[in-house]
Amino acid sequence: MATIISLDLSRRKASEHALDNLAALVGEDMTAVNQLIIRRMESHVPLIPQLAGHIIAAGGKRLRPILTLASARLCGYDGTRHLKLSASVEFIHTATLLHDDVVDASDLRRGGPSANALFGNEASVLVGDFLFSRAFQLMVEDGSIDVLRILSTASAVIAEGEVLQLTTTNNSATSEQAYLEVVRAKTAELFAAACRIGAVVAARPSSEEEALRTYGLNLGIAFQIVDDVLDYSAEQARLGKTVGDDFREGKMTLPVILAINRGSEAERAFWHRTLDETDFRDGDLEHAQDLLRRHNALRDAIDRARHYGAIARDALGIFHDHPIKQALLDIIDFTVEREF
Amino acid sequence: MATIISLDLSRRKASEHALDNLAALVGEDMTAVNQLIIRRMESHVPLIPQLAGHIIAAGGKRLRPILTLASARLCGYDGTRHLKLSASVEFIHTATLLHDDVVDASDLRRGGPSANALFGNEASVLVGDFLFSRAFQLMVEDGSIDVLRILSTASAVIAEGEVLQLTTTNNSATSEQAYLEVVRAKTAELFAAACRIGAVVAARPSSEEEALRTYGLNLGIAFQIVDDVLDYSAEQARLGKTVGDDFREGKMTLPVILAINRGSEAERAFWHRTLDETDFRDGDLEHAQDLLRRHNALRDAIDRARHYGAIARDALGIFHDHPIKQALLDIIDFTVEREF
Repeated sequence: MATIISLDLSRRKASEHALDNLAALVGEDMTAVNQLIIRRMESHVPLIPQLAGHIIAAGGKRLRPILTLASARLCGYDGTRHLKLSASVEFIHTATLLHDDVVDASDLRRGGPSANALFGNEASVLVGDFLFSRAFQLMVEDGSIDVLRILSTASAVIAEGEVLQLTTTNNSATSEQAYLEVVRAKTAELFAAACRIGAVVAARPSSEEEALRTYGLNLGIAFQIVDDVLDYSAEQARLGKTVGDDFREGKMTLPVILAINRGSEAERAFWHRTLDETDFRDGDLEHAQDLLRRHNALRDAIDRARHYGAIARDALGIFHDHPIKQALLDIIDFTVEREF
Repeated sequence: MATIISLDLSRRKASEHALDNLAALVGEDMTAVNQLIIRRMESHVPLIPQLAGHIIAAGGKRLRPILTLASARLCGYDGTRHLKLSASVEFIHTATLLHDDVVDASDLRRGGPSANALFGNEASVLVGDFLFSRAFQLMVEDGSIDVLRILSTASAVIAEGEVLQLTTTNNSATSEQAYLEVVRAKTAELFAAACRIGAVVAARPSSEEEALRTYGLNLGIAFQIVDDVLDYSAEQARLGKTVGDDFREGKMTLPVILAINRGSEAERAFWHRTLDETDFRDGDLEHAQDLLRRHNALRDAIDRARHYGAIARDALGIFHDHPIKQALLDIIDFTVEREF
């Protein structure tokens, strides 16, 4: 199948390397953070670094800790406090990943071997708890109550978002607004906190803290929307990634919500049978993808993501020109225009 | 079956009401903490207070938050900071309970309807995360980095203890030392922290902080040992509680470790078949209880608990006479001499 949306080629070109560029700009910091991550996931209980290492090594992009490093440097910070806080952000993210993957016996497992498939639910939960506690220990070592407030609040909101998502799962009546509330809480809040604490360690005025919070929050929303689009994308299949995990799990994501709202009664019956009743038959995923295409649901979901990207872009307007500012702007394009 | 150990009757009498007495001494505070707990487990996501309420209502004793309140008052504290911290301790405890109950599909469930049986693994994990984050938010509102350090460290140690316990489960070669390390980490550390922060809010010298930490830690070890004894106790069965959960789950607790160390080769083969290989047959639990009795394993485990109780008792020696001091001493007897 062909790529569904054609993009301005030069823009795509620039965005392709955006994450690498940003990572390179904070390369030295990131090396220190990676060492810190490895050192601080140590424990005299061997299963902890073993399991944590499995997921942290697989984690890959390190987008959230990079955002903390970049935000601090953009704010002119030249100390080292941001290193521990960046590691702390990654630990919180890793803990939520571990807890995300805990499934009930009746649920499907993801494509790859998740930590809980390899080590069991209990170990995944407990190592997640350990990393979460370790994140708070790192913050305590830093000593800023402001940072602790921001990240403890973000953690509570993330958990609320995840629970809210459970209550929308297998419910094809979920509204776009409910979806946005889940995304904002479960994903965007940590992006926002990761960026915001960069301004906090740099002791910048609240206008800059707010600008970075706005950037992170909206980047995070865009990121999650695109992630949800990619789950149905033919391009993903071409790249050898699994397609349709969200569909099979009855997750209510934006593409599906748009298709349901725009669909006929017969189509809604199809979505109800599959998403609500988890009664799957041969060809259902292909039919779902066909409906998404027919209603331009993937394209329009990306358009929605672009809107949040635009808010993120404008938020950085108050910062003077700086290679990191440009890289943060490119990250928006990278996020929205990822291959799908 | 008869009670296995006969106790000095008057001592038992005094200990019976020890928890009620202590609770009454901090009754006003506890009312405030209970209100705080209910208010702060609120969320716009209804499943959160619903599930959290289920476990907090069932939680019962509130021993840990009471210890924080009592410790603060024993240290002469007359403010209100200890209320939030007491609620925070209970939230951490509740979060660990929720995460404890998450089981793999193949595992047995406990007697009563646990939260995960009613609401599913995912919801239990996520609401646990929420309560854990909420605990840190309460500490942040209090603003003491010392308290944050104590409780974030305790949380990390608890998680380590739980993971360590996983690695000793179904391993009949587990040593008494390994068992003690698990108990200290998963249970006693939170008792210690709960008591210690009472001295911290009262801004007492480190000698008192250390005394309360010692009290809590050793009380916690005694508490867990007795809990593990009760799981095999005939008296428990008489009270309508399930017996043998730990046995069926292959948990390596002190009574079993003592019986294995003292047993014949044939007995060790029995423990190996049941605990390691989870190959259970009719009459196995009764046979296990018989072996425990034959080797005085329950009685001697209680003796071990008494030792930790004695350390806890001496730790309070530096405090002047006070109704709360007496109640804390009585709690030791209550803990060690509970009906079994």
